[in-house]
Amino acid sequence: MTQDTYALAVHGGAGNAPLWSNSHEREALKESLALALETGQSMLRRGATSVDTVEAVTRSLEDDPYFNAGHGSFPNYNGEFELDASIMEGGSGNCGAVAGVRTIRNPVSAARAVMDHSPHVLLCGTGADEFAKKFGMDLVESDYFRTEHRMAAWQRARRRAAESSPANDHLGTVGCVALDQNGNLAAATSTGGITLKRFGRVGDSPLIGAGTYANNETCAVSCTGNGEQFIKHCVAFSVSALMHYRGWKIGDAVDHVVDHILPDRCGGLIAVGRDGSLSVRFNTRGMNRGLADFTGRFEVGI
Amino acid sequence: MTQDTYALAVHGGAGNAPLWSNSHEREALKESLALALETGQSMLRRGATSVDTVEAVTRSLEDDPYFNAGHGSFPNYNGEFELDASIMEGGSGNCGAVAGVRTIRNPVSAARAVMDHSPHVLLCGTGADEFAKKFGMDLVESDYFRTEHRMAAWQRARRRAAESSPANDHLGTVGCVALDQNGNLAAATSTGGITLKRFGRVGDSPLIGAGTYANNETCAVSCTGNGEQFIKHCVAFSVSALMHYRGWKIGDAVDHVVDHILPDRCGGLIAVGRDGSLSVRFNTRGMNRGLADFTGRFEVGI
Repeated sequence: MTQDTYALAVHGGAGNAPLWSNSHEREALKESLALALETGQSMLRRGATSVDTVEAVTRSLEDDPYFNAGHGSFPNYNGEFELDASIMEGGSGNCGAVAGVRTIRNPVSAARAVMDHSPHVLLCGTGADEFAKKFGMDLVESDYFRTEHRMAAWQRARRRAAESSPANDHLGTVGCVALDQNGNLAAATSTGGITLKRFGRVGDSPLIGAGTYANNETCAVSCTGNGEQFIKHCVAFSVSALMHYRGWKIGDAVDHVVDHILPDRCGGLIAVGRDGSLSVRFNTRGMNRGLADFTGRFEVGI
Repeated sequence: MTQDTYALAVHGGAGNAPLWSNSHEREALKESLALALETGQSMLRRGATSVDTVEAVTRSLEDDPYFNAGHGSFPNYNGEFELDASIMEGGSGNCGAVAGVRTIRNPVSAARAVMDHSPHVLLCGTGADEFAKKFGMDLVESDYFRTEHRMAAWQRARRRAAESSPANDHLGTVGCVALDQNGNLAAATSTGGITLKRFGRVGDSPLIGAGTYANNETCAVSCTGNGEQFIKHCVAFSVSALMHYRGWKIGDAVDHVVDHILPDRCGGLIAVGRDGSLSVRFNTRGMNRGLADFTGRFEVGI
């Protein structure tokens, strides 16, 4: 690994239904991913830490209305917004997460504040909002998260639910993994949650080891998909455990987890190894993703 | 493994301060553990499933005022009760959990209802209470959880916090792991949370892979201690991963996790392997625990 080795990957959700309804939306989505990837690439090139980079990239995806996180989140069953996020740095193993927050513009930065300024890892519900407020986070009214296209989708989903038709299976989440020039890995994940979620359901995005994991000895991972399956199988940690305990390469570990541990049509993940090797896999029809590294690689796919 | 092989372990928290203040309390604590162990042993002997057994044993520890779970929970910073629990069965990998519930008499049974009757794994806050109510769970007023000795300890802790003295480091949680006569493993964990917890803090107890894990291929694990460390290191899942990916025996996996992964004075865990071998380890001064199996083994320690 040379001094200027760096690498990063981003994702903006995986699903079995197309994530766009026309070619204009398709291009806009690709541009959003490219913009997030450029943000991260330019930070890492200038020597930023991986944890600052994954936070900044995830913030930009949260701010983008195209993705189901932050502004543009999918509302819960009652039409309210409850957001989840987590972040982890691979050197110290420090991590932070929030679940079910309602007033924080950028949940990933609240997760970062939990990591940096509290002895805890996971804060839930109104307590997490209170904590973020105490640390000067940017607070917003619930309306900030609302976008026309999500409210329309929410109304369609409510109608389909009333008719007992299957729900739209777009599994939206955003995330970023990065290796910085000092050899430090980090990962972050953020989401508005699944379509019509109820009863304070929390998925894998704010759970360390399930949706997010980073360890300088192995890799950094961020997941997207059917959260319950990622929790059951500790998916993000499993990629690391296969590398650590079996000595597997990152690509083999990622393939094994997506092909043999996760059920079919379930989701996907992005991962970066300590040597800067990038891996992205999904077993859904599509996944919004981008990969970039110090060799000039810069790819976006949807 | 013969047809009538079964084994189980229980715990009632680990800590660095004594968990009793006189010999009467010490004996009462041991009796409570023995009673829980007998409950589980007699169920497994009669052919009950491991998941029914860990739920029933954990309920009995929740109902016992001596343990920091259910009745006898430690109140949060504001003097309110917010309880967490999880359960997992090793055959199907199905699991359920609740965090921050306030009205459910037996949080472990709410976790079981999430596992059995919802597509989700983790429900948080008032949503989890609502869900449990819908499934006919036994609901209680907040006063039910209140016990004189915890309120006195809470007042002492508040005073010490005001004087910036270190908090009492009794890390209370209860849990049970079991192997039934059909070779199925299960684990459950329940807690009132740490002393003076704030901001909706959630520890490892309701998190699959951190505080609780079960897999018929390897083992069932329930943890107790400094929850944040158990989350960072995915402790319960790590024991299983070392067995699965390195082929280690349960005792070696448990020793490695407690001695080399967890920081010192941090907590402990109970585990049972698919062959019925039991393992208990802690790196705190004490841990309330009990072990029993089909050979007649029946041990309680504190």
